[in-house]
Amino acid sequence: MQPIETIRHSLSHVMAEAVVKLYPGTKVAIGPAIDDGFYYDFQLPSPIREDDFPAIEKEMLRIIASGAEFKRLEVGKSEAKAMFAAEPFKLELIDGLEDGTISVYEQGEFRDLCRGPHVASTRELRPDSFKLRAVAGAYWRGDEKRPMLTRIYAYAFATKAELEAHLKMLEEAEKRDNRRLGKELDLFSTHEEAGPGLIYWHPKGGRFRVSLENWWRDEHYKNGYEILFTPHIGKSWLWETSGHLGFYKEGMYSPMKVDEDDYYVKPMNCPFHIMIYNSGVHSYRDLPLRWAELGTVYRYERAGSLHGLMRVRGFTQDDAHIICTPEQIEDEILEVLRFSLHMHKTLGFKDIKAYLATRPAGDGAVGEPAKWAEAMASLKKAIDKEGLAYELDEGGGAFYGPKIDLKVKDAIGREWQLTTIQFDFNEPERFDMTYVDSDGQKKRPYMVHRALLGSIERFFGVYLEHTAGAFPVWLAPVQAAVIPVGPDFADYAKSVADILRREGVRVDAMLSDERMNAKIRLAQGQKVPYMLVVGAKERDEGTASVRMRDGRQMEPMKPEAFVAYLKDKVDQKALDI
Amino acid sequence: MQPIETIRHSLSHVMAEAVVKLYPGTKVAIGPAIDDGFYYDFQLPSPIREDDFPAIEKEMLRIIASGAEFKRLEVGKSEAKAMFAAEPFKLELIDGLEDGTISVYEQGEFRDLCRGPHVASTRELRPDSFKLRAVAGAYWRGDEKRPMLTRIYAYAFATKAELEAHLKMLEEAEKRDNRRLGKELDLFSTHEEAGPGLIYWHPKGGRFRVSLENWWRDEHYKNGYEILFTPHIGKSWLWETSGHLGFYKEGMYSPMKVDEDDYYVKPMNCPFHIMIYNSGVHSYRDLPLRWAELGTVYRYERAGSLHGLMRVRGFTQDDAHIICTPEQIEDEILEVLRFSLHMHKTLGFKDIKAYLATRPAGDGAVGEPAKWAEAMASLKKAIDKEGLAYELDEGGGAFYGPKIDLKVKDAIGREWQLTTIQFDFNEPERFDMTYVDSDGQKKRPYMVHRALLGSIERFFGVYLEHTAGAFPVWLAPVQAAVIPVGPDFADYAKSVADILRREGVRVDAMLSDERMNAKIRLAQGQKVPYMLVVGAKERDEGTASVRMRDGRQMEPMKPEAFVAYLKDKVDQKALDI
Repeated sequence: MQPIETIRHSLSHVMAEAVVKLYPGTKVAIGPAIDDGFYYDFQLPSPIREDDFPAIEKEMLRIIASGAEFKRLEVGKSEAKAMFAAEPFKLELIDGLEDGTISVYEQGEFRDLCRGPHVASTRELRPDSFKLRAVAGAYWRGDEKRPMLTRIYAYAFATKAELEAHLKMLEEAEKRDNRRLGKELDLFSTHEEAGPGLIYWHPKGGRFRVSLENWWRDEHYKNGYEILFTPHIGKSWLWETSGHLGFYKEGMYSPMKVDEDDYYVKPMNCPFHIMIYNSGVHSYRDLPLRWAELGTVYRYERAGSLHGLMRVRGFTQDDAHIICTPEQIEDEILEVLRFSLHMHKTLGFKDIKAYLATRPAGDGAVGEPAKWAEAMASLKKAIDKEGLAYELDEGGGAFYGPKIDLKVKDAIGREWQLTTIQFDFNEPERFDMTYVDSDGQKKRPYMVHRALLGSIERFFGVYLEHTAGAFPVWLAPVQAAVIPVGPDFADYAKSVADILRREGVRVDAMLSDERMNAKIRLAQGQKVPYMLVVGAKERDEGTASVRMRDGRQMEPMKPEAFVAYLKDKVDQKALDI
Repeated sequence: MQPIETIRHSLSHVMAEAVVKLYPGTKVAIGPAIDDGFYYDFQLPSPIREDDFPAIEKEMLRIIASGAEFKRLEVGKSEAKAMFAAEPFKLELIDGLEDGTISVYEQGEFRDLCRGPHVASTRELRPDSFKLRAVAGAYWRGDEKRPMLTRIYAYAFATKAELEAHLKMLEEAEKRDNRRLGKELDLFSTHEEAGPGLIYWHPKGGRFRVSLENWWRDEHYKNGYEILFTPHIGKSWLWETSGHLGFYKEGMYSPMKVDEDDYYVKPMNCPFHIMIYNSGVHSYRDLPLRWAELGTVYRYERAGSLHGLMRVRGFTQDDAHIICTPEQIEDEILEVLRFSLHMHKTLGFKDIKAYLATRPAGDGAVGEPAKWAEAMASLKKAIDKEGLAYELDEGGGAFYGPKIDLKVKDAIGREWQLTTIQFDFNEPERFDMTYVDSDGQKKRPYMVHRALLGSIERFFGVYLEHTAGAFPVWLAPVQAAVIPVGPDFADYAKSVADILRREGVRVDAMLSDERMNAKIRLAQGQKVPYMLVVGAKERDEGTASVRMRDGRQMEPMKPEAFVAYLKDKVDQKALDI
């Protein structure tokens, strides 16, 4: 079987052939393979809509069934120009090519300027493994001053089963969309008129966040971290010294004047932590320092790229800086990695993969090559020691140091980057950070930036989509709903809810005059883990019947027993209910 | 006895007489009574320093002993001008007076333009109850374009005992100064170069803050609040709608541009909470809402007025908004007051006084007078119900509603405002906030702003000065230090520290090669509540001797028993150790 990229690319030619045939006068632009299929950009004589997809797909099936051969032709530049004389976009592409041989692929009645490779015949393409997806506008060459073309996207996989799995995943993803669940579960909102990309945490979102952050702080203290709090604004001196005004300005907002000085809202926390470090003298005996902060930063993102909780303009990094001696770095990196995995596993992520990025090519990178090599060695050693699967991204490191990113796989198979662990050879120099070593000499410490969850906002989005809003008990905004079977039992329901509330359970007493079944549906829809239903029998026995959000039912139990059961789940950070 | 203001004012004339006599050619300006004494502004022929105070005080004592009478003269404007022909500042003041009788006071060889009243004779002034304090520059009439004068400050009280108590308090306050303790205990720093008035919380300050905030959040949840998180920046639309750009602009920083819009760093949290309220429909059944946030706000303060933790440019309000029906307001106000007192008492403040501020005069205030009256009634009723001492500040309310402030007295008798509870008749109108009442009609809810501790930063300063850094165990950054009597016992000390740490005690294992006594002094200086000292006896018995930071000593106990003792103190939020 051909590589999937080859299949996708060949299908894009087939789609182009179909479109040109069905819409005479169409001019073709480009049609690459992408992650889950392919697209092709056209200049069409008349607009098309998704309604037109069946006709296009039908024509594609005909072409596939015809068993047309993919033929590679090699031509000179002038020959190519003659061949594509009626295709202005192709002519422009040809003009941009170096002199020499140009390859063209031909199948059936369609020819395309193309580097290849392709399948040998359209018969190799499976008629049941692709599906046209969407139509969108796209500027020629991504330039908004050039013509707006029509892009047709399609999904394409190696097998029908893979296509179906992908479509099912997308359908599932649609249901789990964080924007949709955020509204349905009343967790958060954004407000275009007050500034897009800024998250407002509603009471129930707030409860999730408080539970998550409490755990995060506890774990950090237990694992040898200290927690700092630093300002959200800093004078230009700080950002000039750190270098952010040099290399990160496009991510920062414009300055505000305070007295005669320019202040910037922080895009990162690091310079503030360094100010604290530099306010004292440090001995090698005081190192390593592990300084963490839930620091809210603001970064510019194009309005069009903002997306629910996933891409925002203000977010709270679960940030930390490790400052240590060169001798300590290997243990520290291993420790950060171990701690990250511990956190992700507690949250229920099992499938975790590392991405290791090395020194970028060219002169842009700071720090001696020996330091990079040493840092890379400690990153690799840590990955090996934890037995983690990893991919190498040669040259993909930041200019200031190498890094490991960790991606977790969610419940429907999507990968999300959460953790990043980054060496920084830049700021310790710029801020002249030092420690006094055992020989009495001032030396430069190593500094590592790390965020485990990435940001609280984006993590909330990922976790919302991962769990479809059915959070584990310890993170659930409402842990139990108490529902009387009818109005006569409202008093008893209230007394049960009071017992739970006194014990610190996040409980919703549903005492309105709606019907019981409506309340149960509502609580289930809100993904409340447990519903305590009470009627005559329960009142007489001093118990409650417990339904679970997944439909299971527990034996009736006394409220105190339920509290003990629930506390146990919370203490264990149980993932099941 | 004369009112203390009269005594202070008379002493200021006596000081002026002494200065004019000792420094011929001196021109006199003004000399009022102030909170703890008086000052007088002079134009001196040559600079003076605090070294010169004894001579001035000696001359003042001579004048007092002389028993000179304070005589009131009443003169016309031209007579007054002739009388003060050699005193340019007095001439300017006379020019500013309306025509008619002008009063002049005379004692001994000194005459002053003065409204009085004064004591009858210098003999009424106690020679042991005042003390010259400081010399400072002050512009004539506070105008930096006018001459710089020399201001001499003095303390003055009714009795020697009161003066001494005040001086002792000041000495004590000096030792407790939050900037000094902040440095000594390594709790926080500020950094002029990165922006003055912005607090950087160091690890030990961070531990205090985390403990305080955890408690604050727990108590809020227990008391029916929800916790929100909102952005630190908002588009101009938000601040125009709220009215802040109209009535609060001087407290806000200049805007930053994002795309084409102006964004402001928030000086208050309220508009964000209102956006969340307005993102849903609310029934009277859903009210009251109690929405709290530890929201960090930024406000402009003159650089010269910034002062440690007490006056800053960025601070975290422990803010909340109560949104309720008119029928609920009385209970809600009472509840807020009760909750505030509960919080302050937990923190150890016993002496708490209320300050009630009513509708300002004129047309500036918003909201119907009937609403103001109703709001005032509920504030007063709540104060009465809690049996709180209070003062009335007629016309001292904000334009948007009446308020109660609560001030607590600290360990050395100073009053600090912490709590504020403010009605807001402005924003619910501006944002058109509504709820659906039982009659199906849309109605306007009441909104109350409240902060209990005021701000986390300023509260930290107050509490630091109140406790002199000797925090109760539950808030202490380090709860116990473990100190071996010598290097042979370091291993055992470490094992004791490990037991404590595992149990969540914030412990400092002092294992360096310094001497035991130096470590004990260090731990005491750091106000660590307990020092566990271990030597041969303790190691053999598996115990530790416990010294307390106040010098007391406990019987040796097993580490587990100490953990239980300490946890009990923490759970009780005990104020003693």
